[in-house]
Amino acid sequence: MTDAEPTLEPSSDVPALDAAAQEAARARQGRLTKPPGALGRLEELSIWVAACQGECPPRQFVRPRVVVFAGDHGVTAAGVSAFPSEVTGQMVANFDAGGAAINVLAGLAGATVRVVDIAVDSAEPLSEAIGAHRVRRGSGNIAVEDALTDDEATAAVAAGRAIADEEVDGGADLLIAGDMGIGNTTPATTLIAALTSSEPVAVVGRGTGVDDAGWARKTAAIRDALFRARDVTSDPVALLRVCGGADLAAMAGFLAQAAVRRTPVLLDGVVVTAAALVAARLSPGASQWWQAGHRSTEPAHSLALAHLGLEPIVDLGMRLGEGTGAAVALPVLRAAVATLASMATFDEANVTDSP
Amino acid sequence: MTDAEPTLEPSSDVPALDAAAQEAARARQGRLTKPPGALGRLEELSIWVAACQGECPPRQFVRPRVVVFAGDHGVTAAGVSAFPSEVTGQMVANFDAGGAAINVLAGLAGATVRVVDIAVDSAEPLSEAIGAHRVRRGSGNIAVEDALTDDEATAAVAAGRAIADEEVDGGADLLIAGDMGIGNTTPATTLIAALTSSEPVAVVGRGTGVDDAGWARKTAAIRDALFRARDVTSDPVALLRVCGGADLAAMAGFLAQAAVRRTPVLLDGVVVTAAALVAARLSPGASQWWQAGHRSTEPAHSLALAHLGLEPIVDLGMRLGEGTGAAVALPVLRAAVATLASMATFDEANVTDSP
Repeated sequence: MTDAEPTLEPSSDVPALDAAAQEAARARQGRLTKPPGALGRLEELSIWVAACQGECPPRQFVRPRVVVFAGDHGVTAAGVSAFPSEVTGQMVANFDAGGAAINVLAGLAGATVRVVDIAVDSAEPLSEAIGAHRVRRGSGNIAVEDALTDDEATAAVAAGRAIADEEVDGGADLLIAGDMGIGNTTPATTLIAALTSSEPVAVVGRGTGVDDAGWARKTAAIRDALFRARDVTSDPVALLRVCGGADLAAMAGFLAQAAVRRTPVLLDGVVVTAAALVAARLSPGASQWWQAGHRSTEPAHSLALAHLGLEPIVDLGMRLGEGTGAAVALPVLRAAVATLASMATFDEANVTDSP
Repeated sequence: MTDAEPTLEPSSDVPALDAAAQEAARARQGRLTKPPGALGRLEELSIWVAACQGECPPRQFVRPRVVVFAGDHGVTAAGVSAFPSEVTGQMVANFDAGGAAINVLAGLAGATVRVVDIAVDSAEPLSEAIGAHRVRRGSGNIAVEDALTDDEATAAVAAGRAIADEEVDGGADLLIAGDMGIGNTTPATTLIAALTSSEPVAVVGRGTGVDDAGWARKTAAIRDALFRARDVTSDPVALLRVCGGADLAAMAGFLAQAAVRRTPVLLDGVVVTAAALVAARLSPGASQWWQAGHRSTEPAHSLALAHLGLEPIVDLGMRLGEGTGAAVALPVLRAAVATLASMATFDEANVTDSP
């Protein structure tokens, strides 16, 4: 079973895609000067964008926005990462200065970048603006304790929803969530294992490049966290509290709220997709507003995508996070929109259609 | 065995990539603010571009150029295509007017498009410029006769080399070959089958969307052409004469000459890659200057890519030709260049490297 089929509960706050625009887009694809189906995935993506925008032909994206959610994780004390926690805050400064991979890739794809400090383990956020939604200083060590209090989990989800609202109100017409947080693939993998009933050993990857001993420590930490989470898997907020983290909770709120606000999303790698699995529980039906940007090398990522019924647009062996995989996929989504919006039809070009 | 390993014969006119720039690029990738290897394929591509340009960091492409090679094929008389031959000339006009998929996709990727009439089956070319390199009116029906005379085959290869020279002299810093020609997947598949010793039935695809009966006719035509070509598989120009076509010969010359002129190439789908297989025989070592843009749904395409030792950048179920698959991959290549050229290093950003 996947979460891809529209599973709108009567109570869901997620609107449906526009069926009329979808149908018009499908029909227009058949009139463009090319054999039917010859643009493959581009045709499907163009129809999806038209259905999201409620308009055919679809409009090219004018304000795609990447929001990088930064947070530290107490589980780094268990030796699960190749990098020290101080790197999280240093990378926030790197994002702010424009020197990170996501700055370069987003810029090339015509997207802008915002970094938010949700739970960096520093005395103060880098700036007031970056720290406006900070929930706490680092999340708890999920191997031995809850990541968050109940209030913090609720506040973090609400922060993510508020950030999505800010961006949509600011004109964003496509949203990408990115992640930055040393140790964050540990809670992300835990969430995915919990929501897909998977054995840790089958899904644990190397994150930023941990060695064999580190991988074993990471797997043990995830096993302990899963044991602690065994009674809360059906409650998304409780799951984020026990074995997630403030940054993951905020991403989940952000992804759910994007769907509520009728704004298409490109998902990134394992951390964002873990949050997406939770968001699909927070707001059933939200996944119809999402596409998977890329397939990362983390084993849990493929599992989560399959569970969401999403097929990644590119598969380039990336495993950086930050939203980089989605940013590399954005030009493909733009290409899909451009072909449907700008190609000539058989009639317009006086080209003979197939019989 | 693949053609990917440097197999430079003493007599080859193809220069080697720049080993020093390649090494400098590899070293710089290790100093950028990300875990080593985390950008996956982007890292490899960036190192390749640096090696092609002989410079690290590499320069972003400023004049990528798509050349669409148009030509008709007498084998359409055998009922191998879903579209009539008149569409080739109509589509040349569509390229000229900017309404085709390649116009839209190239424009989005910052590339310009040129269409050349190598062998369209019309009394006159659309314009003098487009027809400047025309070799003949349509190529012969390879099921029953040679596609070209010996002189025409030589002239078509020379035309392709001349076009590459024109483009490189005009400032092109990346070349993409595209194809347009009703029926052209029939000779393309024949060339691939001949050069990889494959059974037609295993490699014949549906081209623009031929039905079952048409597929059977196409397979029979390819079998007959292969039988006629059985004694010339080791002579690339003779092979193009017997079972290729003027457009395919010109593409082969173009791809070979791009390598001679030290200009990187993004390959497109089955037709261009068939020409690339021949070009690798015309100018041994040329394939080191090429990357595979995409994987098409044509079975022969994957076979040809494997034989060249090339792994496609994207795999989107496309099967249009025109250079469209390469054009969709171009932003990924740009992303690779941009990260290596513009990301901050650990030192510059004061970020702690892994131990």
